[in-house]
Order: sequence, then structure tokens, then C-alpha cells
Amino acid sequence: MTTTEPAGPPPRRGRGRPGYDQAAILRAAVELFNRKGYDATSMGDLAKELGLTKPAIYHHVTSKEQLLGQALDDALDELTAAVTAASGEAADRTAHERLREVVRRSVEVLVAHQPAVTLLLRVRGNSEVELAALERRRWLDDRLAALVADAVAEGALRDDVPPTLVSRLLFGMVNSLVEWYRPDGSYDRAMVADAVTAIAFDGLARHAS
Amino acid sequence: MTTTEPAGPPPRRGRGRPGYDQAAILRAAVELFNRKGYDATSMGDLAKELGLTKPAIYHHVTSKEQLLGQALDDALDELTAAVTAASGEAADRTAHERLREVVRRSVEVLVAHQPAVTLLLRVRGNSEVELAALERRRWLDDRLAALVADAVAEGALRDDVPPTLVSRLLFGMVNSLVEWYRPDGSYDRAMVADAVTAIAFDGLARHAS
Repeated sequence: MTTTEPAGPPPRRGRGRPGYDQAAILRAAVELFNRKGYDATSMGDLAKELGLTKPAIYHHVTSKEQLLGQALDDALDELTAAVTAASGEAADRTAHERLREVVRRSVEVLVAHQPAVTLLLRVRGNSEVELAALERRRWLDDRLAALVADAVAEGALRDDVPPTLVSRLLFGMVNSLVEWYRPDGSYDRAMVADAVTAIAFDGLARHAS
Repeated sequence: MTTTEPAGPPPRRGRGRPGYDQAAILRAAVELFNRKGYDATSMGDLAKELGLTKPAIYHHVTSKEQLLGQALDDALDELTAAVTAASGEAADRTAHERLREVVRRSVEVLVAHQPAVTLLLRVRGNSEVELAALERRRWLDDRLAALVADAVAEGALRDDVPPTLVSRLLFGMVNSLVEWYRPDGSYDRAMVADAVTAIAFDGLARHAS
């Protein structure tokens, strides 16, 4: 610990006057929306959080709703890519294999984009932007339920629980990550992905019947 | 379907002037908090929702925070009863049996008290009331993690995933119910409780390894 070389470039804030770009404003907005609730957060709150004037923020973004829409689209684009990659027809892979892959990829997206996915999972449909996001979530849910149904039809998964209910519970477990996962905590991303996949597919029992 | 006997007493609202009591105001407040977000909801919004004046509401309740505290306590009391009943030491039942019971009871509480539990699961700690609720949630989480650890130590559950992570994922699946369960939907309470228990303990695989 005697090196005097800096470990990397100093944080931008250290350079004097903060130079926020749109991405930095978006990150701060998502964090604030998650902490206070979107409806309870004003652009004035965001300006205060960033130490900027409101006009300085409006130089970069047009409205609070634009920030929400951008964050939700970012989360949905990642989740859609994960689901599309795994859920398409593929002659060389079973539905069961593709479902396992989509579970693993979903965990990775949730961990890598936790703030935006947290915001997405709390959307209630209180505006056009939120309704559009819910529409995209429904499309994903339908694809996932269809993939579960295919895996059941293959004979790989239990058939005593309806596939739509399986899909709800499986991705309920995956989505719960956003509420408790801490990147600096005890569990790294691969460990969580392994645990979710193991518990989901093989269950908690030491010797499953 | 030719009976002319009413099936039960008419709803109170049907008797003319609405006669809200504290319980009815609390139900409406919880529904509104869940829909708009607690921080974004004012007592004026609640009065408008109920068709009451603000003084009429303050005749029954002292503050918005009192309503929040009451709802959170109601949810926490039910969950605490479920966890305490199942998680205490019991010479005649294994930890595995008690864990299965607490999962089943938790599903029942979530379904029976869905609005209050939804509110509880969205609490972020933005006030004394919320911090107190988070404290009680942590106590429950600790009891559940200890019960999982006991079941692992018994040899009943897999030991390749840390018990705290198992507990997070297991109750993440259970808690996800509040986001998608609809009492008037396709799945009744017992069916959901059976599905959660089956998937959690035995997994999705038709022939678990």
C-alpha cells in the first residue's frame, strides 16, 4: 500500500465544477425515483440531488417522464435481448435448455442493471410511458410462459402445476433479486445465478423425490 | 337461481350516505398508497377518493403516517404470527416440516392481506414508521434464515447454497405473489400454496436428480 500512483482516473466530480452528462443525470434520477418513488420526485428534487439548477438539467433532458421512459426502455431492451436470444426456436437446443439459459441471463441482467430493473418492476401504469412499459413486460411474460409450456410439453418439467403459474413463480424468484441483492455483498453474480438455477430446477430437497 | 332471498347484508355503501369507519378509510388509503405511491399521496387525495372532506377524515385518523403505520403493523402482525407459530423449537416436528409450514402460511397471509403486504414490501425506510417496519421485517428474515439453516443442518435440504441465500430466494418467490396474484383469477389460494411448496422443495424438474 505504498504506491503513490493513482489507481485510475480521478472521479469526474473531483475535477472541480461537476460536468454532468445525460447518462449521469439519468443514473441519479433512477436512484432518486427508487428511493422516493417516481410520483413523489420532482425535477427540483433531482436538481437539488445533483447540485444543479433546474435550467441546467433541462439543458440535457426535456422532462421527468423522458428520464423514466429512457430508464424503463434500457431495462426492457436488456431483458428483451435475454429472452429473445434464449426463447426462439432452435433445432439444436431443447426448451428446457433454453429456459435454463433465460433464467441465468435474466439474473445477469437484473444484477448488471439493478436500478433500472427495480424501477421497471415497480411501474404501476400511472401514465402513457408506464403503460407502454407494462405492455412490453407483458410481451416478455408471455414469451417466458410459452417457453415453460414448451419445456413441460417436452417432458422435462413437472406437469402438475400450470405453466403460467410456474412462470410467475420462477420469475418472481428471479425478480426478487432487485429487492435484496447488493453488488458489494456476500454473493457474486455467478453464485446467485447458480443458486437460482439449482433451486428452481432441482428444488431445495437434498434428495428430491 | 330463482331465490329472492338476499345472499347477505347489503354493502354499507348501498344504505345511502356513506358511513366510513376507520377500517374502511384504512382500506382505501392502502389501495391509494399502492396505486400512487405513499409519498405521492396526500390526505387531500384520500379525501377525494372517498368523497369526504378532509375534516371528516381527520375525525377518524390523525395523519397519513398513522394510516401507514397501522397498515404495516397489520401485515407484520400476521406474518409474525405465521413465522412464530412455525419457527419455534418443537420436539415433535423437524425444521424441514416447520419450514414447509411457514412457506404455506406465508402464502396464505400474502393472499389474505395482499394490499397491506404489498405496501410493506415496498417500504424503503423514508420515515420513522418505515424504519420501524423494516426492523420488524429484518427480525422475520433472520428467523426464516435460521429455520432454513436448521433444515440444512438436519440434512433435509441441499447444502451447496448458503442458507441465507436460500432464504432470500425462497421468500422472494413467496413475496412475488403480491405483484401478480389476483383473488378473482385462475388460481385459488390452496393451489398457489401447493405450487409454491412443490416448486420450492422439489424443483421444476420432472425427475429431480
